[in-house]
Amino acid sequence: MKTSQKIETIAIIGGTGALGTGLARRWARAGYAIVIGSRTQAKADAAAAELRAAVSSAQVAGQTNAAAAGSGDIVVLTVPFAHQRPTLEDIRDRLAGKILVDTTVPLVPPKVARVQLPAAGCAAVLARQIVGEDVRVVSAFHNVAADLMASDADMDCDVLVAGDQLADRAAVIRLAEQAGFRAWHAGPLVNSAAMEALTSVLIFMNKRYPGSHAGIRMTGVAEA
Amino acid sequence: MKTSQKIETIAIIGGTGALGTGLARRWARAGYAIVIGSRTQAKADAAAAELRAAVSSAQVAGQTNAAAAGSGDIVVLTVPFAHQRPTLEDIRDRLAGKILVDTTVPLVPPKVARVQLPAAGCAAVLARQIVGEDVRVVSAFHNVAADLMASDADMDCDVLVAGDQLADRAAVIRLAEQAGFRAWHAGPLVNSAAMEALTSVLIFMNKRYPGSHAGIRMTGVAEA
Repeated sequence: MKTSQKIETIAIIGGTGALGTGLARRWARAGYAIVIGSRTQAKADAAAAELRAAVSSAQVAGQTNAAAAGSGDIVVLTVPFAHQRPTLEDIRDRLAGKILVDTTVPLVPPKVARVQLPAAGCAAVLARQIVGEDVRVVSAFHNVAADLMASDADMDCDVLVAGDQLADRAAVIRLAEQAGFRAWHAGPLVNSAAMEALTSVLIFMNKRYPGSHAGIRMTGVAEA
Repeated sequence: MKTSQKIETIAIIGGTGALGTGLARRWARAGYAIVIGSRTQAKADAAAAELRAAVSSAQVAGQTNAAAAGSGDIVVLTVPFAHQRPTLEDIRDRLAGKILVDTTVPLVPPKVARVQLPAAGCAAVLARQIVGEDVRVVSAFHNVAADLMASDADMDCDVLVAGDQLADRAAVIRLAEQAGFRAWHAGPLVNSAAMEALTSVLIFMNKRYPGSHAGIRMTGVAEA
């Protein structure tokens, strides 16, 4: 796959959670083919049926995670931190040369409102350690209020995209824009630490200021 | 000092830099007495004279760092990361029982657009390790475009305030508001990692999108 081509099929691994479901709907509406990956075929089928019901034009299939990763031109991982490693170990053979969008936030229950970054620096760097250098890891969507994504609401937050290759970040920025977000280059993959840590701050604020769905918007950025 | 009292005197340690200068002006205008601390009396005097010239009503003195820390009811540290430890070691005897607002961002030149958090987790936690538990460390002002602060421009960015004590965070939020910012509780001191890391992202964006003074605004927060 070259990034200059239109990406046709997006595989969403862990596509049955709130973030994965929301992204799948938005990308299906934007005309992408979607493959929803789950640990069991039955769950994947159910999520695919739900997406078809929500977006009548959706071109969607449900597959087990490894099969879905193989089907996708681009692969998006939307699983809890505890599942990041086993899931990536399960699918990594299908990822060579592809962009892997890691959305993992290293929350450590029960203190999820407290920043607890892993020793490797951040979850995105962990992902690259697991999948190896021939996978193009890009990190994004950490600060999205996933419970709002399932609706069709306008998302009043920006997406910061970290990755070591400009072209790969640009491809994910385009995907984020097609899902309805304003999105920005945020620097090398290690910079994912900022967005991952910020998620705990947002969770803290949602508790401290009841009724909130905290997010961030960039200000003062001169658009190209 | 009780936090229920009005804070009268703010000591700004490293008050000759862009952030310190900008905060001093804004707080002087808001009616606080300011003590500008610097490593030499001459530099402190010069910065105090500059502040008096900028804000005619300013009640301001220049002192060496340790003396300034002793004079302040609240002490704000605005020095580069490399100076954080020696400066805090110099002033820590004057800080007992006071709020120390640490603004340190752990930038490691030359790659300042790359997140490089210290092993302790963040600069704010380092500060607490240096000054000890009887100082009330609060962390804030990391994401302010300091070059804009020196002007009287409206600041289109929010201030996120981390600290382990609610009352101390609230006191610093009030200070930030009086300097013209919208400010928010961001959780325990360790959460400063998010704001510190975000600064490298903002620096990256200022390079990637020329002409930018990147900042963040919170969205979706239900105000009290």
